Amino acid sequence: MSTESEPPKVQEEVDSSSQSISKKAAKKEAAKKAKEERRKEAEAAASAASALSIEEEGPLANNYGDVPLQELQSVNDPQTGKWSEAVNGREWTVVGALNGSLKDQEVLIRGRVHTTRPVGNKLAFVVVRERVSTVQCLATVKPDSVSKEMVRFVRSLSNESIVDVIGVVSVPDVEIKGATQQVEVQIKKLYCVSRAAKTPITIEDASRSEAEIEKASKEGVQLPRVNQDTRLNNRVIDIRTLANQGIFRIQSQVGNIFRQFLLSENFVEIHTPKLIAGSSEGGSAVFRLDYKGQSACLAQSPQLHKQMSICGDFGRVFETGPVFRAEDSYTHRHLCEFTGLDVEMEIKKHYSEVMDIVDRLFVTIFDGLNNVCKKELEAVAKQYPFEPLKYKPKTLRLTFEEGVQMLKDAGVEIDPLGDLNTESERKLGQLVLEKYGTEFYILHRYPLAVRPFYTMPCHDNSLYSNSFDVFIRGEEIISGAQRIHIPEFLAERAQACGIDVKTISTYIDSFRYGAPPHGGFGVGLERVVMLFCGLNNIRKTSLYPRDPLRIAP
Amino acid sequence: MSTESEPPKVQEEVDSSSQSISKKAAKKEAAKKAKEERRKEAEAAASAASALSIEEEGPLANNYGDVPLQELQSVNDPQTGKWSEAVNGREWTVVGALNGSLKDQEVLIRGRVHTTRPVGNKLAFVVVRERVSTVQCLATVKPDSVSKEMVRFVRSLSNESIVDVIGVVSVPDVEIKGATQQVEVQIKKLYCVSRAAKTPITIEDASRSEAEIEKASKEGVQLPRVNQDTRLNNRVIDIRTLANQGIFRIQSQVGNIFRQFLLSENFVEIHTPKLIAGSSEGGSAVFRLDYKGQSACLAQSPQLHKQMSICGDFGRVFETGPVFRAEDSYTHRHLCEFTGLDVEMEIKKHYSEVMDIVDRLFVTIFDGLNNVCKKELEAVAKQYPFEPLKYKPKTLRLTFEEGVQMLKDAGVEIDPLGDLNTESERKLGQLVLEKYGTEFYILHRYPLAVRPFYTMPCHDNSLYSNSFDVFIRGEEIISGAQRIHIPEFLAERAQACGIDVKTISTYIDSFRYGAPPHGGFGVGLERVVMLFCGLNNIRKTSLYPRDPLRIAP
Repeated sequence: MSTESEPPKVQEEVDSSSQSISKKAAKKEAAKKAKEERRKEAEAAASAASALSIEEEGPLANNYGDVPLQELQSVNDPQTGKWSEAVNGREWTVVGALNGSLKDQEVLIRGRVHTTRPVGNKLAFVVVRERVSTVQCLATVKPDSVSKEMVRFVRSLSNESIVDVIGVVSVPDVEIKGATQQVEVQIKKLYCVSRAAKTPITIEDASRSEAEIEKASKEGVQLPRVNQDTRLNNRVIDIRTLANQGIFRIQSQVGNIFRQFLLSENFVEIHTPKLIAGSSEGGSAVFRLDYKGQSACLAQSPQLHKQMSICGDFGRVFETGPVFRAEDSYTHRHLCEFTGLDVEMEIKKHYSEVMDIVDRLFVTIFDGLNNVCKKELEAVAKQYPFEPLKYKPKTLRLTFEEGVQMLKDAGVEIDPLGDLNTESERKLGQLVLEKYGTEFYILHRYPLAVRPFYTMPCHDNSLYSNSFDVFIRGEEIISGAQRIHIPEFLAERAQACGIDVKTISTYIDSFRYGAPPHGGFGVGLERVVMLFCGLNNIRKTSLYPRDPLRIAP
Repeated sequence: MSTESEPPKVQEEVDSSSQSISKKAAKKEAAKKAKEERRKEAEAAASAASALSIEEEGPLANNYGDVPLQELQSVNDPQTGKWSEAVNGREWTVVGALNGSLKDQEVLIRGRVHTTRPVGNKLAFVVVRERVSTVQCLATVKPDSVSKEMVRFVRSLSNESIVDVIGVVSVPDVEIKGATQQVEVQIKKLYCVSRAAKTPITIEDASRSEAEIEKASKEGVQLPRVNQDTRLNNRVIDIRTLANQGIFRIQSQVGNIFRQFLLSENFVEIHTPKLIAGSSEGGSAVFRLDYKGQSACLAQSPQLHKQMSICGDFGRVFETGPVFRAEDSYTHRHLCEFTGLDVEMEIKKHYSEVMDIVDRLFVTIFDGLNNVCKKELEAVAKQYPFEPLKYKPKTLRLTFEEGVQMLKDAGVEIDPLGDLNTESERKLGQLVLEKYGTEFYILHRYPLAVRPFYTMPCHDNSLYSNSFDVFIRGEEIISGAQRIHIPEFLAERAQACGIDVKTISTYIDSFRYGAPPHGGFGVGLERVVMLFCGLNNIRKTSLYPRDPLRIAP
C-alpha cells in the first residue's frame, strides 16, 4: 500500500486571468485524461481493499473491515453484519469533544483518515479528522482484539477514507503534535465506511501556508503549492482544509448575524424574483435568456423589487440571495454570481438613518465574528495570516469632499466630481487608518454624476448626492443611498441620465400611489468575509465561484 | 374632491390559466391605456393639490400643506420650511403603539390616508394606516391651530397618500369600529409627505373576503371582487392589505425559524451557484442561457452542490435560495421560480435521522408561527378564513405501503409501485386526518421507480427506496431521501434510469474521494406558508410570482 502514501503530483498552474485560450484547451484535455486515470485507480483501490478485508477468518476478523453497502442502506433492527453489530446501541462522539474527561472510556467516532503511519508489523497510527478536529488513534496487536491482519488493514487505508473507530481513550504524558485533541484512542474495532480514491491534491498540500513553502524553499526543499485553479477544480477536496472549513463557517455566521440584527430592528425578510423582463438597473451587462417566448434577464440586484416592497408598506425589508453580473471582470474581487445582502427602509428625515443601520449592523457583525468564530478565524489565519480588523464602536463617517481633500493633502489629485478608482480607494484607506485608526469607515455625499439615476441629489448642492460607500481595508463592500421617491422627479433624472423612460415605466409607476421617502444599501457577502479575513481573492470566499472563465464545478 | 372617493372600476378578469392568447393581447392593450390615463390623473391630482396648499396665508397656514421635495432631501440642521420646523426634535410614534397610556400627549405619526370622511365644513375624519394598524384622526376648526382651509386640505387628501400628523391623543367613550387603535388623534398639524394618484384598486376592495361579497350579493348589493391577476398587476398596492402584510411577515418568520433551528443543530448555511453547466437533475425543463459562450442553465435545485458540500466535510448544510423550473404547469401550486429551503446531512446509520430533523424542524416552525405570528395569522384568516393546522408534537410516519393499504381499504385502488397523484394524495390526507387526527405527516419508503436515480434503494427490498414525502393538508411540501454515496453504484443506477453517465461525471466524481452516507430534503417556502394558512393559490404567498404567463412586475 506504499503507493497510497506517495505524494501526488500537483499541476503547476498560473492564474486563470493570465491564461491564453489555447493553453486552456490543452489543459482541459489533460485534465480529462487525468480524471479518467483517477477513476480507474479508484476502482482498482476499491477492489484491492475488498480483497484485503476477507483474508482472515475467526472471531478477530469481526473487529475490522470494509462496511458493505447493504449495511449502510439504513438497515432496520435486528441488524446483521460486523459493523451493524459493533455500532448497534452506541452513540457517536464527535472528535472535537474528545478530551481527558473521557479517559478509559470506550468511544465510537467517525471521521476521515487524515494520515496513517506504520511502526513495524504490529503497530499502526492513524490520525482521524472530523471537520476541524483531529485525533491520533493506535492499532496494536493484542491477542483478544487486534490481529496482525487488522493492523495491516489499518495501514492499508487510503487518506480521506471515512472510518468508524471504536476504542478506549487514553491520555499520554507528552504533547501530541500531529493532532488537535490531546488524547489518544486505543483502537479495538475499525471499519471503513467509505474508501477514498487517491486524491489529486492532498489536504496537507492544500493546507500549507505561503510562509511554510518559502521557509522550506530557503532550506532547499520544494514543497508543492496548490494553485487557485487546481483547488477550484477539486473543490470537494479543497474545502476540507482547516482554513476553508473556517472561511465558510464564518460566512454562515455573517449571514446569520446580518439577519438576526435586522429582524430585531423590525425588518422583514423578502424573496424577490431573479427572473425579470428587461435589465434590472441598466448599466452593466446582464445574462439574457428566453422566458417562455419572452426576452428576460437575470436580476443584477433586487433594487426594483425591494423598493416596490417599501411602496407596498413593508417599512423595512432585507434579502439575501444571488445576484448576477455578466461583466468581463477578471479581478481578485469580481464574480459573475455572488450573494447579495440587500436592505431597504423608510426614511423619516435623513439618509443618515440608513447609515446608522449600516454602522450598528456591521459593528454587530464584526463583534459577533470575533466572539463566536474564534476557532474559525484562527484556522484561517494559520494558513493565510492576517491582522484583526481595526474598527470603532461608532463608525467613522467622512464626506466625499473630505476624502478628496485628504488625498489632495497627501499629494493625490483626483477629479472632485468623479469617482474614486481602486488605487485612490486604497490610498484613502491608508490615510484614514493613519489619521483615525480604523479600517472600516463610511464615505458619503458622493458626486451625483457617478451614482445611478434613482439616487437622491443633495438638498444644498445638486452636484452631490445622498449616497455612500463603505470600505473595509481600503476596498468597497457596500453601496447605498436615499432613493428618489417622487415619480415625476425620477423620470426627469432618468431622462437626464440618457435612459429611455418608457423602458422603466413599471419602476417609475411603483411610486405613483404614495411612496415614502426611503433608502437602502447592498453588500456582497463574499467581499465581507474576504476583507474581514484579509484574504487576497474573492474566489476563496465563494464556495463554488463563477467568473467569466469558470462555470464548474 | 368627491372624485377621489368614487369607487374605482375593477377589471373583471378570469384566471390566467384559462385565457386565450388573443384575449391576453387585447387586455394588454387595455391595461396600457388605463395606465396612461392613471398617469395623467396622477399629474392632475398633484398639481391640484399644490394649488390648494397655497391658498391661505398667515400663521395657521404653517400647520398643514404638502411637504416640498427639498425638505425631504435629507436637510441638515438648521432646518427651514413648515414641515421641517414642525417635526424637528420630535420622534415618530408607530400607529400600532397608540393606546390609552398616551392620553393627552402630543404625538407625531406617519402613515397612509386609509379613508377620509368630511362632516360639514368644520370637521374631517381621516383614518391613518401604518402597516397593519389604523387610527382615527380628527381635524376640527379651532381658532389657534386649525383653519377652515386646513380642514379642506385634510379632506382633499387622496387615499394612500402618506401624511405626517401631529396631534393630541384622546380616548373616546365608545368603541372605534373603523380603526384598530382604540384612541383618537386630535389633529394640530398635518403634512402630506407623498400624494397618491388614484389607485386602480382600492385597499378596501382588495381586503374584502369572499364571504362578505356573497353576503352582500344575497342582499342585492354587488361589491367589487378583485381577481388574482388584477392584484398581481397592481402588486405594490395589493400587498398593502392586512392579509398580505400578514402573509409575508409569516413567510419571513418561516425562514427565520427554519434557519435558527438548523443553526442550533450545527448546520452550516451555504450558498450554491444558480448558474450551472448542463441540467441540474435531468428530469423537468430548465431555463437555458448563454454563459460567456458556454451553454448553461439555471439550477432546478441545489442538489449537486449541497451533496458536494457534504463530501467536502461540512457535515450538515442548509440553503435558502431561488430555484427555477421551466415547466408549463398552470396549477394552483406550481411556480417557475420559488424559494427553496434545502437541507443535506451526514447519516450515521439510518435515513430516519433525516426524518427526525424534518419532524422537529417543522413542529418548531408550526409552534413558532402560532406563538410569534398570532396577529398576522388573524389578519390572514379575516380575509381568507382557515382552521389552524392540526399536527402532533411527534410527527406521524407511515410507509408508502401502509398508505396504499389505507387507500385500498377506502376503495381507492392505485398502483402499489407507482406514484400518488394529487387526488390520491388529498384522499390519503383525509383518511390520515380521520384515523390519526393530524394534517401533517411523513410518508416514507416510496417505490424506487418513482424517485430520482440517486435515491438509495431499501436494503430489504430494492423495489422500494429510503425516501419520503411530507404532506400538509393533503398536499406535498417536502421531498427527501438517503442518497447513494458510492460512485460505482450511483453510475449503475443512473444507467438503469437511462441517464448518460458521461453527462453527470462531475456529480459522480464528487463521491470518489471518500463520501459519508448522507441524505436530505427540499421544501418550497411558498407552499409551507400557503398550506399552513390553508390558502388556495401559491401566487398568494409569492411576493412577485413567476409562472409560465407572468414575468412582471
